Amino acid sequence: MRQSAFVPHDLRVPLHGAGTGPLAGLTAAVKDMYDIAGERTGGGNPTWLAAQEPARTTAAALRRLLDAGADIIGKTVCDEFFFSLTGDNVHYGTPLNTRAPARLPGGSSSGSAAAVGAGACDIALGSDTGGSVRVPAALNGIYGMRPTHGRVSLEGAMAMAPSFDTAGWFAAGPGLLRKAGHVLLEGQSDKTPIQWVRMAEDAFALADAAVRASLHDFLTRAADILPRRDEVVVTQHGFDAWRAAFHTIQGWEIWQIYGAWVERRKPSLGPGISERVANAASVTEQQVDTARATAGAARNQIRGLVPPGSMLILPTVASIAPPIASSAEALEVFRAKTMALTCIAGLGGLPQVTLPAGLTENCPVGISLVGCPGADEILLDLAVALGRYCGGSA
Amino acid sequence: MRQSAFVPHDLRVPLHGAGTGPLAGLTAAVKDMYDIAGERTGGGNPTWLAAQEPARTTAAALRRLLDAGADIIGKTVCDEFFFSLTGDNVHYGTPLNTRAPARLPGGSSSGSAAAVGAGACDIALGSDTGGSVRVPAALNGIYGMRPTHGRVSLEGAMAMAPSFDTAGWFAAGPGLLRKAGHVLLEGQSDKTPIQWVRMAEDAFALADAAVRASLHDFLTRAADILPRRDEVVVTQHGFDAWRAAFHTIQGWEIWQIYGAWVERRKPSLGPGISERVANAASVTEQQVDTARATAGAARNQIRGLVPPGSMLILPTVASIAPPIASSAEALEVFRAKTMALTCIAGLGGLPQVTLPAGLTENCPVGISLVGCPGADEILLDLAVALGRYCGGSA
Repeated sequence: MRQSAFVPHDLRVPLHGAGTGPLAGLTAAVKDMYDIAGERTGGGNPTWLAAQEPARTTAAALRRLLDAGADIIGKTVCDEFFFSLTGDNVHYGTPLNTRAPARLPGGSSSGSAAAVGAGACDIALGSDTGGSVRVPAALNGIYGMRPTHGRVSLEGAMAMAPSFDTAGWFAAGPGLLRKAGHVLLEGQSDKTPIQWVRMAEDAFALADAAVRASLHDFLTRAADILPRRDEVVVTQHGFDAWRAAFHTIQGWEIWQIYGAWVERRKPSLGPGISERVANAASVTEQQVDTARATAGAARNQIRGLVPPGSMLILPTVASIAPPIASSAEALEVFRAKTMALTCIAGLGGLPQVTLPAGLTENCPVGISLVGCPGADEILLDLAVALGRYCGGSA
Repeated sequence: MRQSAFVPHDLRVPLHGAGTGPLAGLTAAVKDMYDIAGERTGGGNPTWLAAQEPARTTAAALRRLLDAGADIIGKTVCDEFFFSLTGDNVHYGTPLNTRAPARLPGGSSSGSAAAVGAGACDIALGSDTGGSVRVPAALNGIYGMRPTHGRVSLEGAMAMAPSFDTAGWFAAGPGLLRKAGHVLLEGQSDKTPIQWVRMAEDAFALADAAVRASLHDFLTRAADILPRRDEVVVTQHGFDAWRAAFHTIQGWEIWQIYGAWVERRKPSLGPGISERVANAASVTEQQVDTARATAGAARNQIRGLVPPGSMLILPTVASIAPPIASSAEALEVFRAKTMALTCIAGLGGLPQVTLPAGLTENCPVGISLVGCPGADEILLDLAVALGRYCGGSA
């Protein structure tokens, strides 16, 4: 089933913004995990939706968009409980990836990315715990931003794994991505100019050869405006231990939040999701303690790689979007390779922006910039400067 | 040859806008037909470029973008002297259509559309005489606007056929298209709300069956917000006479402007362009007089179909983008079918907006709204309301 980027229980009429402000006249779509006063929030699962009362207030991030003048035109489909990177929601269908129509849109913020990719709206709000903005942005050929952990309010949004949850956003153009960022970002920024660009050698090594070639083409085109570069190995021990620690903590936290409800209501969950939820239920306290120790060490190591004034460049996703009819095994491979890359900023709590660098086998691929905590604005500025090299030769 | 959307003689550094204003922080690219102070304007042909002095002033439309806060990041490739709808510039290569990479981007504002489609910038300025914004917008899966003739200044821009020339623009999202419109549009607007939507039956009949099916799907999805509809035949006599009259006037006017220079400099011109320029040279005064009589009658008839408060719906382009390696004959067929549709607003001097309605055979197709003179803002508002139905099911 392939369908609209919007949920069946969508807004009946748009929410009109303040009329003036930096986003005046622009339209936004929001992932169905943010509360809108008077509406039920579904989190990608109809059983959850059916159990909800209409929200009393509107989520803080949405209020910022509205106050800045944007109209909110709809609520978008997402993967169930945000626990997938593929975008194939068994209940609501798979939002159409207009840039690669035979392939998955990526998730979990699938509908938000698809809506921006299709031109249904100007900007869209998603969320990114383990890659849920970065992955669909890359696969749909648009820009996506995962902010520094804590810099965009999640008040009024469903949680997934609070240690890693961030509110992220999408736009088709770089200036608009930045403009939305200036509206959404709070708290302390680090505006040290980037003078040192680090190529994440082991992250590039994970990418398919054709993806790597496209990204290197992009970097060659953009060489003039990228400051001094070196190569760095993110982890000498491979990404497996980091990814496993991330997954363990993610599972533990999601189960703390939704476990009791899942046991009581036994909702129907799609393939992949049900296995991951079952797995989440089985995480022990000892396992999560060990994982937190690994994650803490990883965080220090990752932050040590990107001091203020530097950034890391890496592939957003290791491969192009999987075909819609991919096997469960193929999707697990996709997930594992993807999370090796996305867990870097996830564990580090670091901001990451993905740009639509170009095409590989006629499908979009993304390149990512990861900065130090608070470097969100600096990364957005750099995305604007690098934007003109997006597209380029095929 | 396929390459960047930007010309080799591009800006060395971006032109920075006012810093504040409705487009603050956004980036724009401009077709290489608008003067930028200190830069040479190329019009898609290197012989012309070589003969130019740097411009003394910056074109009025660009000044509006800059004053509204946008940065101008580059000059884009276009078809030679704007005299094509395909986007395959023999000198500068064919800008990559990221939404249909094996196919042409459409022209003549090829690079502007490709740049927006690829996410290289937020908005782009083109020009539309016989479809040069509408066509590449549709083929690249983005929004494009041809304003009412005369409502956006062409001061400081190269002319093509002044009877029909308009400055048009592109954006990937509907609110941004509108926002740019509010900055660029001058003169009298007609804000009569649309209460009457007319389906241009004979225009739909020209479209390939698969394109027609996609557009009907879009209209079905959007039915709730489209007011009362009827069907109308635009011309009882077929589009051939109108298209021929348009082509004759276009040829006559372009020859008045560039003929003496072409005869003196004998520039190398690409396939299609050289034949059309030779044909333009052969138009007689008597032929153009007859054509102007036909065009005048057509204009009255077309304007009669869309009184204030009504609009016409039609396919933007009759088919998906032609493959890059299309034969000259296939491109002539594409051109003829396309111009039958685009000459309606061209002859009428009417505003037309194209929306990325959906996909046909995995390639973008556009749907168009044509309004009465001055209905530009009303059409842009409607594009925003209809935007959410773009993409949809494949």
